[in-house]
Order: sequence, then C-alpha cells, then structure tokens
Amino acid sequence: MNDPTPKDPDYEARVRASFARQGLMVTLGASLIRVAPGLVEISLPTSNAVSQQHGFVHAGALASIADSAAGYAALTLMPPAAGVLTVEFKINLMAPGIGERITARGNVVKAGRTITLAQTDVFALHEGREKRIALLMATLMTVEGRDGVTS
Amino acid sequence: MNDPTPKDPDYEARVRASFARQGLMVTLGASLIRVAPGLVEISLPTSNAVSQQHGFVHAGALASIADSAAGYAALTLMPPAAGVLTVEFKINLMAPGIGERITARGNVVKAGRTITLAQTDVFALHEGREKRIALLMATLMTVEGRDGVTS
Amino acid sequence: MNDPTPKDPDYEARVRASFARQGLMVTLGASLIRVAPGLVEISLPTSNAVSQQHGFVHAGALASIADSAAGYAALTLMPPAAGVLTVEFKINLMAPGIGERITARGNVVKAGRTITLAQTDVFALHEGREKRIALLMATLMTVEGRDGVTS
Amino acid sequence: MNDPTPKDPDYEARVRASFARQGLMVTLGASLIRVAPGLVEISLPTSNAVSQQHGFVHAGALASIADSAAGYAALTLMPPAAGVLTVEFKINLMAPGIGERITARGNVVKAGRTITLAQTDVFALHEGREKRIALLMATLMTVEGRDGVTS
Repeated sequence: MNDPTPKDPDYEARVRASFARQGLMVTLGASLIRVAPGLVEISLPTSNAVSQQHGFVHAGALASIADSAAGYAALTLMPPAAGVLTVEFKINLMAPGIGERITARGNVVKAGRTITLAQTDVFALHEGREKRIALLMATLMTVEGRDGVTS
Repeated sequence: MNDPTPKDPDYEARVRASFARQGLMVTLGASLIRVAPGLVEISLPTSNAVSQQHGFVHAGALASIADSAAGYAALTLMPPAAGVLTVEFKINLMAPGIGERITARGNVVKAGRTITLAQTDVFALHEGREKRIALLMATLMTVEGRDGVTS
Repeated sequence: MNDPTPKDPDYEARVRASFARQGLMVTLGASLIRVAPGLVEISLPTSNAVSQQHGFVHAGALASIADSAAGYAALTLMPPAAGVLTVEFKINLMAPGIGERITARGNVVKAGRTITLAQTDVFALHEGREKRIALLMATLMTVEGRDGVTS
Repeated sequence: MNDPTPKDPDYEARVRASFARQGLMVTLGASLIRVAPGLVEISLPTSNAVSQQHGFVHAGALASIADSAAGYAALTLMPPAAGVLTVEFKINLMAPGIGERITARGNVVKAGRTITLAQTDVFALHEGREKRIALLMATLMTVEGRDGVTS
C-alpha cells in the first residue's frame, strides 16, 4: 500500500465507535482486537452459535467478520466525515473453520478516492496453532454527504 | 439448469434436518421457507441484531443466508450420502438492506459431479414492496466419504 | 433493471465507435453484434488463435469479450461525456469452450450514479446448439472529467 | 503455502510444453518468464493490439495472462498425468494498464487434492518503475482421467 497515513487523526476512536454500533458483531460475539492505519483485526470465539451443519464455523460467520475487518481497515484511511459501504466481496474457503478462535486480519491493498480494495486473511487458532482458512477480497466505497451514512 | 431431478427422493427432509443443525441460522433468526429441486429460500427478519453501523442489514448477514440458500439448493440435487461445502462465493451489494424482512432465493445454475454453481438473489421487503438488494454466486463442492461431512 | 432509458440518445454510435478502438477485440477477431439500452452482445469465432492447451477457448478470451460486453452494456446507460472503467469482475466457467462461435451477452443488473453492476452470459454454439458455458459479474464505474477516459 | 514440493520432477518441461500450446498466449504476444514450484511468471509487452478504448491494456488481456499464470502455478504441484482447469477467477483492477510491459506473477495459496487456490499479482513496468495494477484470485481444479484434458 502506498500511503497509509490516516486523513483523520481520530481514526481509531471513530472505528471503535462504529464497530460498537454493528449489532451483528455483538450477536456473533465478535470483538475488535486491533486498529492501525490500513489494518483492522477482529476476533470471534467459535461455538455452536456460529456453526454450519457439520459443526465447522459457518462461511457466513467468517465472511461477516472478514467483511467488517476489510471495511474498517478502509475506514481508517478515509476522511473524517466519510462513511464506508461494501460494494462487493469474494471469499475463498481453504479449510474448514475448526478450532477455538477465528481471527480476521483486514489490510488495505489500494486506497483510492472513491474505491478502496482491501484483503482480509482469516485464521483459525486450533490447539495452539494458527492456520489460514479463508481469504476475502473486498471493494469498498467512500461515501460522503449521504444521509444516514457516516462512519 | 439442465436436469433438476433430485438423486435423493428424501432431499427435502435432508435439507430441513441439515438446516436445523446450522447454529448460525438460529442465532440470526433465519428460517427455511421453501425447498424444491435446485431451489431453496431462506428468510430473515431485520433487526438491530443483524445490523451494521448505519442500521442497514450487515452484508455478512445477507451473505450468511445467501450462502446457506445456495448450498442447500445444491444439496437438493446431490446423492443421498453426499455433503456440501462452499468453495467460494462472491456477493455484490446493490442497495442497502432496509426493510422488514430479507429473503434469499438460491438457484442451481449448473450441477456437476464435483462442482455446482449456484446463484442467490437477495430481496428486501420494505413497505410491501420487494426489491433485489444483492446477488451472490457460489461454487459448491460435493463431498463424499469424508469424516464429519454428510448432509 | 429499473430504468433502462439511455441518458445519451447517441448511445449506439458511441458504443460502436468505442468498440472499434479496442485493439484487443480486433486481435481476438471479436465483433459487436447488438447494442440496445442496457444490453450488448459480442461474438467471437473459435480458432486455435484464442485457445488454451487442450484446444478449448481460453478462459481469458471468454473473459475478454464478456468484460467488454458488460462494460458496453453499462456505457449505453451512462451520460454522454462519461467513460466506463471495470473495477472488478468474476467469471465462473461451467463447461469447456468448445464449438464454432462464442457469444457474450452483457446485461445491466443495476445502474447507479457511480457504480453499475452488469452480468454477462457466455454461450458456445456447437453443432447448431447453444449452451451457456460461463457467467461473468462485473462492477463498472462511471468516470467523468478524467483525462483520457471518455467513451 | 505449506508444501510446494512438486509431485512431478518434470514439472517445468511440462508447463513449458503446455504453455506453447496455448494459442491465445501466442496471439497476445505473451511469454513464459519463470517456472518454479508453485510459482509461474508471464510477461506481455503492451501495444495497441491488447488495448481497450482509452489506450490502456484491456482488463481481458490482463486477466488472460493472470489466469494462465495462476493455472500453471497450480500445475507445477499436480501429479504427472493431471490436467488443470479454471473453475472461476476474480480480478480486481487497481490502476490503468499503462507502461511498456505487463508481468503476471502467479502463486499457489493452497494446493488441495481436487481444488487449488492461486493468486496472481499483475504489475505494469512504466518508465523503469513497477506498479501493481491488478490482483486475480483463481480456483483451479485437478483433472485426472478425462479425455482431452492432460497437462
């Protein structure tokens, strides 16, 4: 990434306040672990509450925290009044979501004025070993001056 | 789709039993509305419990029910002992998730021996009007003879 | 799609002139078959010149005409001075590209002010029968006032 | 990637012979630069023959060499008799394809028995400086015992 300098000095407080308003993250039991310029990490303890039929973590739960990590990584580099919306994302599932804890690490790949590309690597911590189980690429949009869409 | 004839006459019971084991669907409050050969519909009432920071339904919640709808649409056409795994999916978000209820309609586009392609259209019901808000394309894999992966 | 009324009455001439400037289409031997509001069709005769190692049409050749069809379908609905750029696309390959001729039919799914979503269905004509072999979903961007990017 | 040890000691000769049969690569003027376990590099000189309407390299030309690089990176790790087919790929375009030469570097992210995930980074060399302009993620399939599909 070329220039990870935040345009908003209060980017961390802004991301944390926004994350606290995401009802889905509370419902899933996810928490915000790390906020840095162009980088956000979200953690999710595994349990039956986020599982699919074979007992693995549901791809939708992985995608949910991975999308939030990508979106907030993008938001760290956006101007103070801007909001972020996901245009699209793709997730490749490499291995089943098995273990005690899932971590989604979102990184900005390219921050443009309107469009930001971010990648989230998703890891499962299982018996002390971390394994990458999924990879999400997201296109995020900077939204300014639209009602209801701020950080 | 060429041949939507189920290989398993009990496909509906099988999909319903499998859906009931998806802890995430219970956590989100989603329910299985319709199961037909190559087609599955899942419904989700909107609430703060599935929201993102602007009060819209979180893209991850949309992706969760859309992925399940695609996966189960694929499963309706798979042999009795087979399980289904998501290889990857992409979701395009067209409009914010606003309204009373979200419906994900998954359809099989092409059912192969190993790989199935399915598309899920996601609609929001808002003040009596249904609007398509997202579109997911998923690659699903038929898994046979792997421990822990049955329907 | 909601409103396929072109903002530019000369949309067809504009698309045809732009297509003629795409050197890659000439190199591949592709031609513009149909231009209508929100819809563009491109055709490609198969030959060894566009093949991969097994003699099928290369996924990249399918993607090339499918991307152009999606982009020009989007351009038919854009304002007169605007240019179109592809933000991303995903292509699912369903069957090998075998036959005499490939046709890519691009349709606008949702036309927004900045972002347009378009889908291209790719068909192979083989012994008089047309078969859908690939499906591309593209995110296109309306570009206005940027040097070098007009229609 | 966990284990990049080739199952076929002749992987390089096999990849080079297969590449030579890809008619599209000849048509575009692409050449195979580097073949290593889990890694393949393809280079394309820019010219009007591979351009889109604004004179940039067409997204389809970028996707073509990026797909071949991903597929051949996957093939380096496959058994001797196996062939490789692309199931799907997604490409994000970050910057216009401007410059003298395009390089696509494909890397295997995860090699499974049936499914391989590979990423290709696409760079443009412009006035002596290399810039990443696109990123492709591809799902490849190992095909064994199917008529007409060998390496």
